[in-house]
Amino acid sequence: MVKPAYVAVDWGTSSFRLWLIGNDGSVLDERRSNEGMVAAATTGFGTVLANHREAVLAPADLPVIICGMAGARQGWVEAGYIDVPAALSTIPFAAARVPDATADIRILPGLAQRDRAHPDVIRGEETQLLGALADLPDGHSLVCMPGTHSKWVHVSDGMVTRFHTFMTGELFDAVASHTILKHSIADTGAVDGGSDAFRRAVEEVIRNPATATSLLFGARSGTLLHGLAPTDAKALISGTLIGLEIAGALDAAEPGAPVVLVASGALGALYESALDCAGVEPVIVDADIAVRAGLAVAARSLWAL
Amino acid sequence: MVKPAYVAVDWGTSSFRLWLIGNDGSVLDERRSNEGMVAAATTGFGTVLANHREAVLAPADLPVIICGMAGARQGWVEAGYIDVPAALSTIPFAAARVPDATADIRILPGLAQRDRAHPDVIRGEETQLLGALADLPDGHSLVCMPGTHSKWVHVSDGMVTRFHTFMTGELFDAVASHTILKHSIADTGAVDGGSDAFRRAVEEVIRNPATATSLLFGARSGTLLHGLAPTDAKALISGTLIGLEIAGALDAAEPGAPVVLVASGALGALYESALDCAGVEPVIVDADIAVRAGLAVAARSLWAL
Repeated sequence: MVKPAYVAVDWGTSSFRLWLIGNDGSVLDERRSNEGMVAAATTGFGTVLANHREAVLAPADLPVIICGMAGARQGWVEAGYIDVPAALSTIPFAAARVPDATADIRILPGLAQRDRAHPDVIRGEETQLLGALADLPDGHSLVCMPGTHSKWVHVSDGMVTRFHTFMTGELFDAVASHTILKHSIADTGAVDGGSDAFRRAVEEVIRNPATATSLLFGARSGTLLHGLAPTDAKALISGTLIGLEIAGALDAAEPGAPVVLVASGALGALYESALDCAGVEPVIVDADIAVRAGLAVAARSLWAL
Repeated sequence: MVKPAYVAVDWGTSSFRLWLIGNDGSVLDERRSNEGMVAAATTGFGTVLANHREAVLAPADLPVIICGMAGARQGWVEAGYIDVPAALSTIPFAAARVPDATADIRILPGLAQRDRAHPDVIRGEETQLLGALADLPDGHSLVCMPGTHSKWVHVSDGMVTRFHTFMTGELFDAVASHTILKHSIADTGAVDGGSDAFRRAVEEVIRNPATATSLLFGARSGTLLHGLAPTDAKALISGTLIGLEIAGALDAAEPGAPVVLVASGALGALYESALDCAGVEPVIVDADIAVRAGLAVAARSLWAL
């Protein structure tokens, strides 16, 4: 008979995910909501967590392991950062303890790169990395974790040596919603990573990254002069921003280091196509599985489950 | 005794400027308002123009020359585009006539680059170019016209051969208002082009343009890890975007071609500093004077004033 062993939570800026995990490591129950850091800061982090723990019938004293923005300064309890270079295996031991009468609740820290010229921070993705570690090739790898703020992390034998954040996803939203280009992409659905428009944009910006913001304007002038279709205009914008990111990240890569893509769903497919345009065939790791695996590693490290 | 000879209008997206010009070329009166294309599309272009003509006591039959967004498809009367390569001197003769019972009212056309791979359009800046022509060095020059959509125009012996639009100004606004970076630059004033933060950002992105969107994120991580001041964070964002533009534009320059900066005020100072970081000392032309000079060339070409 499988018994509940711990609760695992991935608490992002705008999303909340909770799993009830059994003593054999299996997922006994799962909850998803939009009660991310922003919403929980109003509702109360303790209230949000308590509601979901009750919903999955978790015993009150079951330990809880949390990663993500709940540990940010504007979150629940600040969980700070571990400075790189850092061994991923040390992450669990720097978790912040949430004051609670009955359960052991801990929030995992982020990673900080305090280099004056290239300061950078990670919060949440360190747990995916911890979970993906077993799937990484030996030696040095370059791990791409796309999203609102894409992270490219250099990992060497279980150590994070350095990393770079690219604002790709957030820039795409800002450009698509708050510039003149919004008129060129009205009423379009998801971008097709296999489309000519997407792949051409990726290849063009990799060839000449400095022209990125001029290539973006091509979405408007293409519409005006050549009747560029809205779906192609959107693919052009997406491909330009993702291609710029890939050009910048590969530029800082160790020669020959394998690229590992930690992603899921449609975003994963876009990056796989864009990496292909750059001549890179990545090792693929599912991001949803990785974060749960990372939380499991942390729970086992802390509580000898 | 100087008599009014014509009315000159620079009609932008969000601004309206009108000058009453005398038969000796002098400015007899001037009007400025925020009745640009967006506002005038509601009020009525004819009404806006009539009000300002009356305000400067322009005779009803005085000819009117207009440049800018009044000639766009969403404007008053569409003035189309002249395809490049094009001689700037031909611009006046492609002006669109506005139906009017008493006065000869014309709107100057834009320029179009119909190249399938690099389509681009200009509307308004072609008139500044026409006015700046007398100040350009002989032979080939690269003319930089910064703004919401910065234009870099290759001019050779009075001909526009090609040009590139960079979305710098609009991207700056979108990034500063609609991304996480807004928290890092709260309550700051104008960017100081002479500041270390600005110049370092320009130099860094010129050295490695592909890392642009990662450098932008430095405004946030610098705030979190090193207490980066909001004014410096804003300078970093501005310098990164302007530097990226300059890197892209200079990359397409003819070797040895002089750079001409057509700009005014604070924006002109920012670009002068950024160009200096790139080792470029531009010829400076005042943008306000240039647009009026261009409208004057057009008026004289059309009406033998």
